[in-house]
Amino acid sequence: MKKLNIAIIGLGNIGSYLYKYLQINKKKLSKKNNCIPNVIYVSAKNKNKKRKIKINKKKWLRSYLNATKLKEVDVIVELIGGAEGAAKKLVFSALKNKKHVVTANKALIAKYGDQLAKIAEKNNVNLEFEASVCGGVPVIRSLKEGLIANKILKVHGIFNGTSNYILSSMDKQNKNFKEVLDTAKKLGYAESNSSADLNGDDVSAKLKILSSLCFNSFLNSNIHVEGINNIDKDDIENANKLGYKIKLLGYAELLNNIIYQRVHPTLIKKSSYVASIDGVLNAVIINGLPVGQSIIQGEGAGPAATTSALVSDISSILRGNIKFPFSISNKERKNLIFKDISNRSFSGYLRFEVKDKSGVLSNITSIFSTQNVSIKRLIQNPNKNKGSSSIVIITHESKDKDLNKIIKVVNNKTYVLKKPKLIRIDDN
Amino acid sequence: MKKLNIAIIGLGNIGSYLYKYLQINKKKLSKKNNCIPNVIYVSAKNKNKKRKIKINKKKWLRSYLNATKLKEVDVIVELIGGAEGAAKKLVFSALKNKKHVVTANKALIAKYGDQLAKIAEKNNVNLEFEASVCGGVPVIRSLKEGLIANKILKVHGIFNGTSNYILSSMDKQNKNFKEVLDTAKKLGYAESNSSADLNGDDVSAKLKILSSLCFNSFLNSNIHVEGINNIDKDDIENANKLGYKIKLLGYAELLNNIIYQRVHPTLIKKSSYVASIDGVLNAVIINGLPVGQSIIQGEGAGPAATTSALVSDISSILRGNIKFPFSISNKERKNLIFKDISNRSFSGYLRFEVKDKSGVLSNITSIFSTQNVSIKRLIQNPNKNKGSSSIVIITHESKDKDLNKIIKVVNNKTYVLKKPKLIRIDDN
Repeated sequence: MKKLNIAIIGLGNIGSYLYKYLQINKKKLSKKNNCIPNVIYVSAKNKNKKRKIKINKKKWLRSYLNATKLKEVDVIVELIGGAEGAAKKLVFSALKNKKHVVTANKALIAKYGDQLAKIAEKNNVNLEFEASVCGGVPVIRSLKEGLIANKILKVHGIFNGTSNYILSSMDKQNKNFKEVLDTAKKLGYAESNSSADLNGDDVSAKLKILSSLCFNSFLNSNIHVEGINNIDKDDIENANKLGYKIKLLGYAELLNNIIYQRVHPTLIKKSSYVASIDGVLNAVIINGLPVGQSIIQGEGAGPAATTSALVSDISSILRGNIKFPFSISNKERKNLIFKDISNRSFSGYLRFEVKDKSGVLSNITSIFSTQNVSIKRLIQNPNKNKGSSSIVIITHESKDKDLNKIIKVVNNKTYVLKKPKLIRIDDN
Repeated sequence: MKKLNIAIIGLGNIGSYLYKYLQINKKKLSKKNNCIPNVIYVSAKNKNKKRKIKINKKKWLRSYLNATKLKEVDVIVELIGGAEGAAKKLVFSALKNKKHVVTANKALIAKYGDQLAKIAEKNNVNLEFEASVCGGVPVIRSLKEGLIANKILKVHGIFNGTSNYILSSMDKQNKNFKEVLDTAKKLGYAESNSSADLNGDDVSAKLKILSSLCFNSFLNSNIHVEGINNIDKDDIENANKLGYKIKLLGYAELLNNIIYQRVHPTLIKKSSYVASIDGVLNAVIINGLPVGQSIIQGEGAGPAATTSALVSDISSILRGNIKFPFSISNKERKNLIFKDISNRSFSGYLRFEVKDKSGVLSNITSIFSTQNVSIKRLIQNPNKNKGSSSIVIITHESKDKDLNKIIKVVNNKTYVLKKPKLIRIDDN
């Protein structure tokens, strides 16, 4: 039977899990792919760190970069992480030296994916990154293979388990952001530094990759990004009263040959599919022609789910299934137009914390009318003790820039107690 | 660029849609797969039937079986349908003559899949049947590729759009079976002869195929099958009152090295994911190690969704991605033990329509106690006018054979007005 030699570079939680998985399942995978996945080398920053796996001393490389030079290495699995430094050096060098690459590194692919894909294509090797987007959810393979027939019009969903865990826990346990985040950290659902999970950057990187796969475009950073840091208990309660849940969603849409990419907390109907996704799960919803709407849901993170994705990539290489990294040849990828969302129209949830005095409400509504934003629903909750009032306004569909203008104008008023908030509504 | 010649045999709704799709998207698919999908021949029972597509006369084969003999044909797409007759002849002959085969024929694969896979493997050609299970939902490719790393423990879900449409319409519109079925036929959601959709046979054939892919076993017909024909408005109402929905579900599970396959109406919690799937959608839920639970959802039927699946199969062949039809070599497929569900335990919903007279209830409960089935909840609805009573009993988990024994014993009593009913409950 044919054999491919694999070097695993990086032996943290994921690397160690993968190493062990390949040890145990070598025979099974060989049978399924008609080719043996042989882990010949490993490398990690700290060779002497205590790990739960036993690795023969002979397997350790002197330097991780040797993997790219040794003739006997066929496949390099990069699990170092980060868009720069060692990971970048390793993957560029590997592809240049005609090694297949499998990586879980979303930062690297989101930043250098186009350049890397070009080298991979030129050298006729695979660059596989299923594990970089939504862990165990086989969305990249589905886009490149299972749904290959389709013209994709829209991809959206829940791409970050940490923020989804926090929002759904705030909702279910009626707790505030800080409390839930602390619990999430204790339970291992949030990292000690979870800023990229909470500020939308993690979703943004995943969306960028998905978007380019869906629309056969180059990677593009024109993405409107907001995180969940500003969502508080009152917003969750207000949403509930109005029949909505709040979710951090990523969207990429093709409208009249223009692509819009956005990441932001969103009010979605309680009865919708997305609203039912709680905890650390990820869900990707794809609208395509002719297939209609497809949904893929699963575990978005963790060593087990990530290993499932890495092994599907390794298997694809074992079977000799050489594909363009982004579904289509580099020369065929399009330079589509990406626009920001300022001229798109959304219904908005706007919340104003103001002094409870006469004239304030009429001033606010007059600002709406100046911006040509029409009001669908208005809820006023005065707090007589504090002399303050919370005003929530749901608008009809209005231009994003007009909604933002209202926030800006009201924010300058002396009656404002807190920065006003805009959360977009998705009524689909 | 490389080119593969394709013969499409069968030009009904699906065949015509596929033909047109390949005409329009030939260039696009060539770019994605680095190989041209060239439709060289077609064949259909009635050549002169009016079709919405224009086909060059030169493309028509004299006999459909010629496709298997002509040297220039590389891929045969079988869209005749049915487990026997022309479809069977075509696919066997095609594989024997080393042609790749793509088919949407679940009856054929469920019956002859093992034999066909053996020939395909021997001749090193593809036998692809993504379209045979759940139309546009890329579940087979996901099992064979995206989730290849996983030991699958369970697959279940909604595999038939027609029955799901009927059950969800009965629920939402508060109508009875017959009324909804008539509407479904008018709207094209049910065929004029929809018996296989309603009696569970369609789900059973799909489950058989999925099961063998999940567990690397041979196809096995040991499947407990019940359809939805006996579900009435009262059952739907009762379910609602108890916090459940009724869905027709297929299950294949691996427990202690034994596989259990079953298809039956099931009471599932309103809050569960499956309960939220309404209308003609299909949903497949896969539990595997290490990935955890994955869900794939989408359009289960119709020319558009089916074409999406057929094209993914054709693309796989264009890319030269030769795979074992059932994920693993014929010699490695296992002869696992399949058992019926009589010794499995389920909670049951049992409904008895009886004469409203004293002693009946105590007689029924005594039968439960004789069978060692303990009662969790009992609801009695007397209808004084008719002198009848409807008794609904929810049980704790009990052996399936004991639940069935109760039905049998009670059915022989003189106080019974209608055959008693058992619907299994899934509280997961």
